[in-house]
Amino acid sequence: MQRYFMLKSIEEVDDQAIEVTGEIFHHMSRVMRMKPEEQAYLVFDEQLVVKAEITELFDNYLTMKVVERIEKSTELPVDVTLFCGFPKGDKLELITQKTTELGAHHIVGFPSKTSIVKWNDKKRSQKQERLEKIAREAAEQSHRSVSPDVLLLADINEMYNMLAQYDHVLVAFEEAAKEGEHAQLVQTLNAIQPGEKIAFIFGPEGGITPKEIEQFETRGAKVCALGPRILRTETAPFYALSALSYHLELQG
Amino acid sequence: MQRYFMLKSIEEVDDQAIEVTGEIFHHMSRVMRMKPEEQAYLVFDEQLVVKAEITELFDNYLTMKVVERIEKSTELPVDVTLFCGFPKGDKLELITQKTTELGAHHIVGFPSKTSIVKWNDKKRSQKQERLEKIAREAAEQSHRSVSPDVLLLADINEMYNMLAQYDHVLVAFEEAAKEGEHAQLVQTLNAIQPGEKIAFIFGPEGGITPKEIEQFETRGAKVCALGPRILRTETAPFYALSALSYHLELQG
Repeated sequence: MQRYFMLKSIEEVDDQAIEVTGEIFHHMSRVMRMKPEEQAYLVFDEQLVVKAEITELFDNYLTMKVVERIEKSTELPVDVTLFCGFPKGDKLELITQKTTELGAHHIVGFPSKTSIVKWNDKKRSQKQERLEKIAREAAEQSHRSVSPDVLLLADINEMYNMLAQYDHVLVAFEEAAKEGEHAQLVQTLNAIQPGEKIAFIFGPEGGITPKEIEQFETRGAKVCALGPRILRTETAPFYALSALSYHLELQG
Repeated sequence: MQRYFMLKSIEEVDDQAIEVTGEIFHHMSRVMRMKPEEQAYLVFDEQLVVKAEITELFDNYLTMKVVERIEKSTELPVDVTLFCGFPKGDKLELITQKTTELGAHHIVGFPSKTSIVKWNDKKRSQKQERLEKIAREAAEQSHRSVSPDVLLLADINEMYNMLAQYDHVLVAFEEAAKEGEHAQLVQTLNAIQPGEKIAFIFGPEGGITPKEIEQFETRGAKVCALGPRILRTETAPFYALSALSYHLELQG
């Protein structure tokens, strides 16, 4: 069944006569050719998922009524932010799509010293909008009740300032993998509590510089390896989120 | 430092005068412009990794001598085969590249009932060759000592016949995720022993049919969920391999 992020609170609607307009109306009526009595999941801002049924179709909108509130959560029990050094090409699109499926809540891009791309304000804001759309579509498809927000920073100093707000900060570091450091990720995942905030930092293709590592560590970040193999910049976040899910959601 | 798969046994060479020809010679001398005394890792068929130094450069080949044998393994302690129902477009390329980084040993594509692509023998063999090249490049980059083999099957019955050779077979099944099945993956990873063979089966976009599931189960396969979110066909293998690595290599 299709799933739509309403981008509003359930408080703002009458749950027996929800008016659906704009892009979602277009997708339901034109793309999916839905008819009265057909159903879809609607997701409201409070991470509330409801099953709703079309009651009437009009030219520019349709109405739906809630038939069931879905209680089961598909969200990770901790709040996860990914910081990704701007990678080359459209890798940030792949990262955004896949890490949304894998459960990320916030995706932040930052210009690392070794990042090759240079985006001006306009380009950065266009890119951010595009990535948020990719995240929303992936969140719908993977049955999430949260669509991740995406933020592309102009300056790495903004990122340094953000790090204080997390309970745990881990930096994926290639050299740690080579040196056989295997304990830190497990140690952090053993320590993390439901509701806490964790951030993972990943460098671009050229890696994180020792000076950047130092800045992260000054702010409480810990260096970790993601297994013994060297992962590409876009693959490392997949490993981190899968390990997090496996540890917290499957091993429990 | 660059890494090259020699595709031969160390027994076949004189380790103080290894002759390097063909593609590897071209890459070292023309692409990397390496000179005498410069070093690279060479990987031999017995999963042996050596550090070797160029001794002399000639027009069509160069010679190297072994300066160090590297003992540290970057291979998963179990033998992992992925069976992927033929997905759309070039997703098999993404799957091959990423799962090689994540440690897979064998990648097998099969035509599932819901697979949309139809490849004739010639197309399939071209595709297989291309995927093996992608795997080899990814294996070099991720510091593996094994380059995964790739096999694209003409018929799903060939796959059914292969399943008897594994100690464990898991099928990633979307419905299992929806029904909240969370125990099977952990149970299998708790049971698996070093040196054993495990296979994971993933459907194409349209999913695995109930009849296929039945065939898998008859041959000892167990259905599992990869967390509570619905993962796309190409994302599920990333989760499975990352969880495997986390459980066996980091938690130990």
